[in-house]
Amino acid sequence: MEEELKAHLEKFVCLSNEEWEQIVTYFKRVSYRKKENLILEGQICKSNFFVIKGILRKFFINEKGVEQTTEFAIENWWLTDTFSFLNGSKTDFYIQAVEPVEVMQVKREDYLNLLEEHPKLEKYFRCIYQKAFAATQMRIKFIYNYSREDLYHHFSTSQPEFLQRVPQYLIASYLNFTPEYLSEIRRKSIS
Amino acid sequence: MEEELKAHLEKFVCLSNEEWEQIVTYFKRVSYRKKENLILEGQICKSNFFVIKGILRKFFINEKGVEQTTEFAIENWWLTDTFSFLNGSKTDFYIQAVEPVEVMQVKREDYLNLLEEHPKLEKYFRCIYQKAFAATQMRIKFIYNYSREDLYHHFSTSQPEFLQRVPQYLIASYLNFTPEYLSEIRRKSIS
Repeated sequence: MEEELKAHLEKFVCLSNEEWEQIVTYFKRVSYRKKENLILEGQICKSNFFVIKGILRKFFINEKGVEQTTEFAIENWWLTDTFSFLNGSKTDFYIQAVEPVEVMQVKREDYLNLLEEHPKLEKYFRCIYQKAFAATQMRIKFIYNYSREDLYHHFSTSQPEFLQRVPQYLIASYLNFTPEYLSEIRRKSIS
Repeated sequence: MEEELKAHLEKFVCLSNEEWEQIVTYFKRVSYRKKENLILEGQICKSNFFVIKGILRKFFINEKGVEQTTEFAIENWWLTDTFSFLNGSKTDFYIQAVEPVEVMQVKREDYLNLLEEHPKLEKYFRCIYQKAFAATQMRIKFIYNYSREDLYHHFSTSQPEFLQRVPQYLIASYLNFTPEYLSEIRRKSIS
């Protein structure tokens, strides 16, 4: 199953078998149970997680004590608190398995050594972060500009797989809705 | 003044003089007048802009017809609509000079050729996008979690230089406040 990561790297860079065999040693394959936390608020987010199977979500507990989901990651997506991961600071977030999850995880020191030893992966991570940043710039526009109903429709059109796989209350948490409000919008869309 | 870009690249990678002399040919130094638009909504954002002197802002016209500022860039910051820049799609944004601005700008094809010819710059751009993405992940948390007053205080503590240099109505536009509401918060902070 590590082959999933190899295939993803090879979308951006060519690797020999020998290179891959070295690269994979920097990663650890780990399984998490449904609802298991990979990271808790207050910890240092020491790893970056590449999802091989399942879904992760990232959330924080807001000032009202409610879980606010800020990101999901399905197969072939990376997820971490990048700020905590890079700076070794404590995270404000939780990362949790929405379904049983298999990840390839890489620790910060291993990530830096990996890039040092295999500089061709700089291109891979440059492309990954570039795409992620582009998407987040757009997301900020959506948050400011879209009505709550528009946000739902944009999300359901652009990420139909999430709607199928993620429980309703987590979709509501991502869109900053109450579950009741989400049901109402969905009823309106169907009718 | 191109030396500003050289110094910034050298924070992340070592360059020989010969390399720098080649690299700089991919960039064009351009001056813009105060309030001049570098990019208009509906255009393809063909360049990425590195600010040597002055301030840029990025904004869109929201559904109420009001300018909503989403980003500022001062000296040593990059600014573009990354999605439009990468994909050659039309942008929803404007990029405008807040003050008279000097930039080093690089076109998409030149950016890709530059990385092809000088792969050591992959590390530079990986680090730039990584930091930008980390900051934007945090910003989404702030937008969801902070009261409007907290947003102002966070902004004024983390970016004091902007408060000094950027006109009040643009700070208000960035924080999604009316100028009147911003004045009210400032009055409260001072008293």
